[in-house]
Amino acid sequence: MMARKDKYEGGPKVELAHGDGGKLTHELVRGEIASRLSNPALDPLTDSAALPLPLNPLLTLSHFTGNTPGDTGAVASASASTPGPRLALTTDSYVVNPIFFPGGDIGKLAVAGTVNDLAVAGARPLYLTLGLIIEAGLSLDELRHVLDSIAATATQARVEIVTGDTKVVERGKGDKLYVNTAGVGLIPTGREFAARAVRAGDKVIINGAVGSHGVAVLSSRQGLEFSTPVISDCAPLSDLIEECLTIVATATGDTSAIRVMRDPTRGGLATTLVEISSAAAADIIIDETAIPLEPGVQGACDMLGLDPLYLANEGKVIMVVDPAHAETVVDALTKHPLGRDAVIIGEVSSRDRDGGSGRLFLRTKIGGTRPLTMLTGEPLPRIC
Amino acid sequence: MMARKDKYEGGPKVELAHGDGGKLTHELVRGEIASRLSNPALDPLTDSAALPLPLNPLLTLSHFTGNTPGDTGAVASASASTPGPRLALTTDSYVVNPIFFPGGDIGKLAVAGTVNDLAVAGARPLYLTLGLIIEAGLSLDELRHVLDSIAATATQARVEIVTGDTKVVERGKGDKLYVNTAGVGLIPTGREFAARAVRAGDKVIINGAVGSHGVAVLSSRQGLEFSTPVISDCAPLSDLIEECLTIVATATGDTSAIRVMRDPTRGGLATTLVEISSAAAADIIIDETAIPLEPGVQGACDMLGLDPLYLANEGKVIMVVDPAHAETVVDALTKHPLGRDAVIIGEVSSRDRDGGSGRLFLRTKIGGTRPLTMLTGEPLPRIC
Repeated sequence: MMARKDKYEGGPKVELAHGDGGKLTHELVRGEIASRLSNPALDPLTDSAALPLPLNPLLTLSHFTGNTPGDTGAVASASASTPGPRLALTTDSYVVNPIFFPGGDIGKLAVAGTVNDLAVAGARPLYLTLGLIIEAGLSLDELRHVLDSIAATATQARVEIVTGDTKVVERGKGDKLYVNTAGVGLIPTGREFAARAVRAGDKVIINGAVGSHGVAVLSSRQGLEFSTPVISDCAPLSDLIEECLTIVATATGDTSAIRVMRDPTRGGLATTLVEISSAAAADIIIDETAIPLEPGVQGACDMLGLDPLYLANEGKVIMVVDPAHAETVVDALTKHPLGRDAVIIGEVSSRDRDGGSGRLFLRTKIGGTRPLTMLTGEPLPRIC
Repeated sequence: MMARKDKYEGGPKVELAHGDGGKLTHELVRGEIASRLSNPALDPLTDSAALPLPLNPLLTLSHFTGNTPGDTGAVASASASTPGPRLALTTDSYVVNPIFFPGGDIGKLAVAGTVNDLAVAGARPLYLTLGLIIEAGLSLDELRHVLDSIAATATQARVEIVTGDTKVVERGKGDKLYVNTAGVGLIPTGREFAARAVRAGDKVIINGAVGSHGVAVLSSRQGLEFSTPVISDCAPLSDLIEECLTIVATATGDTSAIRVMRDPTRGGLATTLVEISSAAAADIIIDETAIPLEPGVQGACDMLGLDPLYLANEGKVIMVVDPAHAETVVDALTKHPLGRDAVIIGEVSSRDRDGGSGRLFLRTKIGGTRPLTMLTGEPLPRIC
């Protein structure tokens, strides 16, 4: 054992910046993790996987009990012959510090974040799992408060926590509480959102102001107080999104009006839009003046030298939408309390159909245009 | 914030023993967690949830988009009117220390453990999620080794890792690497295992020797070397179980020959059998002389004062079986390399049909009989 330990402990290490949700996270996930586990469901590296359900009775389930290692081809073929609802599966671990912050806590965050990953995939969230890693010494009262938040947020999002696991680690080997939630949802037949559906001219819509979760957690961590208090936007978006999809489908009769949805969490609006533009091989340009910002967030960013476009959100959805239906989508979103401030913030300026990586641009307040990249540099660790 | 912090930090705390898988873990899980999140799928507190899939096209999915908070009743009713395969969902966080041990590592453990929770529910494992919480400073080589183990074990168990999440915490806020896996499987129509199906006279079967995972991890953690090396039994049991179920169903024509299955992990054989006897309201008696033990495990237990019945296993399954078919089940298990040493270790001595909690007894080597309780007292922390 000692020889192996020595062997593995040398060389390059994982550093905090690998967890910031930006460029280094992508390199770690793509280069080290996804490359080793590659399969068609995983490879798109979206926040949830859309999965065929091998329920076709003609195939029976015996296809899965054969002796060919790695033979999961039957899953895909079962689906191809029986188009139907697909399963959406997602997971997130939450390591936010501190575990209580203005507007929420790690429990609310864990339920809302996982529900949102399902909702932006077009799935109706059904079931969640709950994994707790507790540092010895956590007060039972704090744990109870987090569990009450989990229960309340699950009720709000109409999902059930159906199974869980609890581990305890020694003092100094954790940081009060880490939470993992995995979520299962169903994507109805005919619903498909994908970056590849994005077209030149499409509009980019967001349901409200950016950056409040990042500022709320940072200010709480540093003990800062702002004249205008900043409350995290942390909220489950499944109702907002489902109601919007229903209204838009009814109003437009067009199931492809919304091309793709994403929730801009770690890495912020800019990193998520870079991911969309890259996956779509399409350039996106957003207007700095159109992006909603609360005064408190603006003030905190000015004071702390932060860029709100890179701050985490936990109750925001970005939609890329057919321009003919963009106003319908905005109107639909504004009917829901969580979409009251929905607005068009940009558009797809071009699409390279021969591939090539799309880029994100910001049209600045003073009228210039500059490229935006993924979050790099100083990490804001443990924001979610 | 400070006032709230002070309020929550006082009072009783979570301690290491709450994570040992024994009595205190049960109290924490039942009293604090499950009580707050109660729903029909969660309440049995088995290691996985069996879930209806609301796929009935007549119901359409609009039942799930209504405006009644908490209204998930349609899920159950959809299932009641359309009996079909159910979804099995499970999750486990892995905090084993050290992350490499004889016979495996945290990656192999995470895949095998979650696959096994699905398999003992009668589910065919399909999809896994992967959540990594990495302590800054973990060497990339160690991470790569763990990821290779995850990939190899997933291939062996014929499951796909379809989605994941990666977080990094500061040095001193973790312990190299914590892994969460959630697993989705399908339980074929007609398959149902439950402790309530247990009958007086049923036989208790295990697929091999107990305690090797616990001893392998402990010896590795303490730097102990035994004259007979102990290797963890960590292995995915899905093939063993699926092949056994197929053989038994064909040989007996009886789909209820196997009443219930469980994998005796944290808390060991004794704790898991206490859980079964309690859930079944049936007394179980096991024979000390019949329980298989490797010489190395026996030696380590003698030396360290450990009871092998309370040591963790990661490649074992307990089956409670109709006595008429017990030999058929043992024969079926022994056909597979992971079941070569399968044996009957005890039986259900009585069942109280009016409820009341069943108890577990050990018939000792010298012929006496003593009750066995759940693991209590000195915790063996972070064994999985």
